[in-house]
Amino acid sequence: MLLYGWHTVTAAIDNPRRTIRRLLATENAARRLTAEHAVRVAPEVVRPDVIAAQLPPEAVHQGLLAQADPLAGPAISELGPEGIVLVLDQITDPHNVGAILRSAAAFSVTAVVTTARHSPEATGVLAKSASGALEHVPIVEVGNLARGLEALKERGFLMIGLDSAGTTDLAAATLRSPLALVIGAEGRGLRRLTRATCDQMARLDLPGRIKSLNVSNAAALALYVVSSRLAAPGASGAAR
Amino acid sequence: MLLYGWHTVTAAIDNPRRTIRRLLATENAARRLTAEHAVRVAPEVVRPDVIAAQLPPEAVHQGLLAQADPLAGPAISELGPEGIVLVLDQITDPHNVGAILRSAAAFSVTAVVTTARHSPEATGVLAKSASGALEHVPIVEVGNLARGLEALKERGFLMIGLDSAGTTDLAAATLRSPLALVIGAEGRGLRRLTRATCDQMARLDLPGRIKSLNVSNAAALALYVVSSRLAAPGASGAAR
Repeated sequence: MLLYGWHTVTAAIDNPRRTIRRLLATENAARRLTAEHAVRVAPEVVRPDVIAAQLPPEAVHQGLLAQADPLAGPAISELGPEGIVLVLDQITDPHNVGAILRSAAAFSVTAVVTTARHSPEATGVLAKSASGALEHVPIVEVGNLARGLEALKERGFLMIGLDSAGTTDLAAATLRSPLALVIGAEGRGLRRLTRATCDQMARLDLPGRIKSLNVSNAAALALYVVSSRLAAPGASGAAR
Repeated sequence: MLLYGWHTVTAAIDNPRRTIRRLLATENAARRLTAEHAVRVAPEVVRPDVIAAQLPPEAVHQGLLAQADPLAGPAISELGPEGIVLVLDQITDPHNVGAILRSAAAFSVTAVVTTARHSPEATGVLAKSASGALEHVPIVEVGNLARGLEALKERGFLMIGLDSAGTTDLAAATLRSPLALVIGAEGRGLRRLTRATCDQMARLDLPGRIKSLNVSNAAALALYVVSSRLAAPGASGAAR
């Protein structure tokens, strides 16, 4: 896979688990890189257009491009029954998925579970939007989401689906750790089988004229609400 | 300006203040449109590729395209000293600005203040990402942001700048209405003159390894924190 952009590439270099096959850098980027990071792959110094030629036209590469191997993610059976797991039901837009992974890292989620497979180009955009989060968040890829959700449930996770027509306000729902927060795509929402495995469907109450948010904004808000409520003194099951 | 996509175009049609010059629709979209909305401009029924030809290659138009006039925004002197005003300091990415406007509408902000001018193509992307929010959020365009901030301050707004290195946790800051929340671009943050006009610099505390969010996610979270704290019983200045 191709990783580009300052935060994305330096986070990959700083991650000993990430195998980097080749590193291209502009003269300026190479200088800053060797000054600020323990660079374990010698950068090939190239002109910016050599990097740009390998990327989509609008890609902001900031003088850095790495060819790297994908990280192997854990299986659901390897996840400890703790904290928050974020489950994405057919969210495909790479900018949104990248921003969601970034929020997942910011809120220390245990893992992100997804069915989505992205093209190499989309993977690059996703990694750039994730701004280094790919190095910090374990990603569990499952073939069948309903089965993945059942496996989480069996491991003791409370399953909360996010839905604008949910019966409970997420900020008032009874929560406990470990918790799986399940989010669907804009418009389509959660699929029927996904809903069926959730213990509760919860909504984010919004006071304004528009009642739904961009999916990555909704995910960030839901993670904030859930993680602050689980961390609050006196919260039930705040083992986290 | 060009508006496309179901939510974006139908919200424009439903807004009596929005002048629509021309409306193109596919046969399916035209049928659904006339069934569900009081259509005040007769749609010209066309094939999908006629719409696609007027838009960037990746645009998801859902069979609807409108040529419309921009809405005239208010001046700062016309804003009532109430609620929350969101100020954007050089945030330019149209996907992010659109998502922020959508959150602004969801949290009923009084207005969004911005210096940004977008190209016609970026305006279309912004409107699509805003998913109808352009019809609900008054947008104040100012030439000089520092002057705009001073004008808000004179009107009694508490000026809160958002910064990952802020001195106060936003969730614990002393807040009151009316309040202006000032947000800068990722990486660059708030400019020096913008900071100088803020009463407080506040941060969003994030527990994880990644300490900054996508700018639209940060804006959604900050709006949630501020609006729930101002709405809480016993909050100081909860006149909102």
